[in-house]
Amino acid sequence: MEVVDQSVIPQQKSGFFARLKALPCKVKHNIIMVGKNIKKLGKDDPRRVIHSLKVGLALTLVSLFYYLKPLYDGFGMSGIWAVLTVVVVFEFSVGATLGKGINRACATLTAGALGVGALHLSSLFPKEEQPIILGSLVFVLAAATTFTRFFPKIKARYDYGLIIFILTFSMISISGYRVDKLLQMAHQRLSTILIGGATCIIVSICVCPVWAGQDLHNLTASNIDKLANYLEGFGDTYFQTAPEDKDCVNDIKNDKSFLQGYKSVLNSKANEESLANFARWEPGHGRFLFRHPWKQYLKIAALARQCAYLIEALNSQCSSDIQAPPDFTSLIQESCIKMSSETGKTLKSLATSIKAMKHPNSATEHVENSKTAAKDLKSALEAAAIEDLDLLAIISAATVASTLVEIVECVEKISDSVHELSQMAHFKKVEATVSPEKAPQMLLHRGTVKPVLLDGDTDDDHVVITVHDDIASDSPDKQNVKTPKTRVAPAVL
Amino acid sequence: MEVVDQSVIPQQKSGFFARLKALPCKVKHNIIMVGKNIKKLGKDDPRRVIHSLKVGLALTLVSLFYYLKPLYDGFGMSGIWAVLTVVVVFEFSVGATLGKGINRACATLTAGALGVGALHLSSLFPKEEQPIILGSLVFVLAAATTFTRFFPKIKARYDYGLIIFILTFSMISISGYRVDKLLQMAHQRLSTILIGGATCIIVSICVCPVWAGQDLHNLTASNIDKLANYLEGFGDTYFQTAPEDKDCVNDIKNDKSFLQGYKSVLNSKANEESLANFARWEPGHGRFLFRHPWKQYLKIAALARQCAYLIEALNSQCSSDIQAPPDFTSLIQESCIKMSSETGKTLKSLATSIKAMKHPNSATEHVENSKTAAKDLKSALEAAAIEDLDLLAIISAATVASTLVEIVECVEKISDSVHELSQMAHFKKVEATVSPEKAPQMLLHRGTVKPVLLDGDTDDDHVVITVHDDIASDSPDKQNVKTPKTRVAPAVL
Repeated sequence: MEVVDQSVIPQQKSGFFARLKALPCKVKHNIIMVGKNIKKLGKDDPRRVIHSLKVGLALTLVSLFYYLKPLYDGFGMSGIWAVLTVVVVFEFSVGATLGKGINRACATLTAGALGVGALHLSSLFPKEEQPIILGSLVFVLAAATTFTRFFPKIKARYDYGLIIFILTFSMISISGYRVDKLLQMAHQRLSTILIGGATCIIVSICVCPVWAGQDLHNLTASNIDKLANYLEGFGDTYFQTAPEDKDCVNDIKNDKSFLQGYKSVLNSKANEESLANFARWEPGHGRFLFRHPWKQYLKIAALARQCAYLIEALNSQCSSDIQAPPDFTSLIQESCIKMSSETGKTLKSLATSIKAMKHPNSATEHVENSKTAAKDLKSALEAAAIEDLDLLAIISAATVASTLVEIVECVEKISDSVHELSQMAHFKKVEATVSPEKAPQMLLHRGTVKPVLLDGDTDDDHVVITVHDDIASDSPDKQNVKTPKTRVAPAVL
Repeated sequence: MEVVDQSVIPQQKSGFFARLKALPCKVKHNIIMVGKNIKKLGKDDPRRVIHSLKVGLALTLVSLFYYLKPLYDGFGMSGIWAVLTVVVVFEFSVGATLGKGINRACATLTAGALGVGALHLSSLFPKEEQPIILGSLVFVLAAATTFTRFFPKIKARYDYGLIIFILTFSMISISGYRVDKLLQMAHQRLSTILIGGATCIIVSICVCPVWAGQDLHNLTASNIDKLANYLEGFGDTYFQTAPEDKDCVNDIKNDKSFLQGYKSVLNSKANEESLANFARWEPGHGRFLFRHPWKQYLKIAALARQCAYLIEALNSQCSSDIQAPPDFTSLIQESCIKMSSETGKTLKSLATSIKAMKHPNSATEHVENSKTAAKDLKSALEAAAIEDLDLLAIISAATVASTLVEIVECVEKISDSVHELSQMAHFKKVEATVSPEKAPQMLLHRGTVKPVLLDGDTDDDHVVITVHDDIASDSPDKQNVKTPKTRVAPAVL
């Protein structure tokens, strides 16, 4: 037994000492990891660091209610409500802060008035009956307000206000039963809450403001851009490399950065809706007026998601192991690459025009080009006479082609809705002028020949852009104006 | 001029009076509409009404701190913190309430201790320097904690705790500068906060509890069920009616209830994640133990969403105007209908087994059937020799077939992950016994003949089910056990 014990104890001891020795290393490693994470988080969006400092600043400002004697003499213990308000109201974006602040102020006012009314009502009854009256009122109002919070529209905009309404009404009508100088207390609290809310709003707007509207605007543009990246790359990768180098097709599936791009669009709904919700509280800022059509962004986002679903299907289709016969591939290849690259270019130019808030002129041409390519595909398939066709072998490539046709339709809808946005939000009109020596190159186009076709490979190199503010022709009534399908001949031509 | 005025004023007046006359009607109409909405909201989920009453009850309970003299003498004005806690902590589900309650209690304790420590530290300095020390501490801690809230994992679980941490630390270290009996105040507040939180948790658990875990479980089952409904109906609707009655195909697109079903699965991610998050706070309840594998539900949900994306693609594909030639349709029709109905049945039986928490035995057979149908489709296409094929006409039907094959693969993955869940959560094992007189009907199966094939039209009519608790064979280590692909012959046969 002793021998066993002897052999065990040193092992345990050495194990313990080894772990003790390794501990500083492990702790150091963990600290370095946490440090890296913190650095990454701050680097990804430096506004996070600024926001944290802003919260500290706002809190320090309201703490002056305690530290400065004259202010403390005026407000007393109620100053703590300013601190409380700052902590719960200060949010990342101006819109969220404003929404919460306004909700809190309105709810406190209404509930305060109702609470004082309830106390007056209860004072008509004898003292021992008052708790029953007040208790019933609190019960009924709290239950009714809580139920109201289940209405989706009310929850989206006024949820915080309703909570504060219950809170304030309960506090006033319950504590009013014991407190004598109720009105003075209510007045002090209301002022400090208003001061706290105002501090939040002022700091939020004046120190490096984060506008939810601007974020929604950028998010919409970047989501469309992500879809564009996939589509611009897809056609060439799938067709040109598929027969020779099968690994490259798998790359479409394996390349994470390629994938991650559009994947994030699939689940962006919740984020977009909350941003649109916050944006509606915000005053005009930068290039956005007060009543900027934020709802239209949600419409565009829904269509972009629709397109992402199709790309998701496309992505799983192109992983098939079966190689299409060269006859069939050559039949559809050109129009498929064209559809893919032209839809990509459409989306790219829509994203660019949203970012720059300029009228998406060039997108219209790319839409027309992609539609022409879809028609070309149809006529090529109709005219084809391939004998001894291996149906199984063509089915995968045919599915890709068919999905691309659907993507063309979806991208046209996105283009239409961005044009609507451009009308509603008075985007600057851009007059594209085709330099005559370049246009004829593209007139030799496979399939139907269009009257004016622009070079699609590079976006702007042959276009002279004239920007002028378009005030006379745009009005808010024109919200349903669709994309002009045929292009008006530019004045300079 | 007078004539004009005479003719205008009565019109205006009559317009005003007409509107005044119509006002009661309009108000009545609005009130009726609001009433209907309230009724609908309550009818859709009666737990909403119960929750509202529970909030009222909890508030009434904590208001006793003010109404009952002995309690008021003990806690004084601090009783208001119990009211405040109830209003902000009480949430719809037990998990959310527990999460907030525990967050609040822990954060209050930690921040309280740190706050008292900060006050002691500042007391070492002269009185006029104390605000600077305390202010700097509040600034640094608030900024650091606010930044911590940006870490996604911390935000998901401890966001509320971090807000309360800032709140409590600021309140104690700021107000401590002026208040003398700080420790007594802190003690009173902490007790009332704990009592308020406990009231919430007790009312939430004891009065008709709403378990987030149960909700997540039901949501997962119902999402799979929605996908099943679409797939079960799709094959027959698309193929049998397409040649004769084109309107019916459009019905797939137009029938809102048919559509809405799977559409809600597309955007269910946020909801599922928050439910899983709340569920992790919940103790064991009903059929769920404390460490129920909630994360596996998220895995299943992600795969179900993947399937919904494919159905979304399928849905847009079947709206094509081009009719496939009868030759081609008859070639793929049988296997497509089979794939669609068998995947539908797989999902239906998975949903049923999740709901009943029973091992999904019958799903495995349907998965095999659908895979056989996919193989049948491949061999039918390989063997086919159709001459003068109109490529354009077949492309739409071919795409539908190809998407169905992908859905078969996706449904197999869903089945695998539900099997994993069944292992991890120790679902009851069900031994299916085939009644011999019915099985042979299905042995006449197109393509390869399977050794045992069950009638798939009705799920259970020919199956005798024996349920026994499966404790010995299931262990938590077996988390990666996959679906048995070949079915073990039942003991009773």
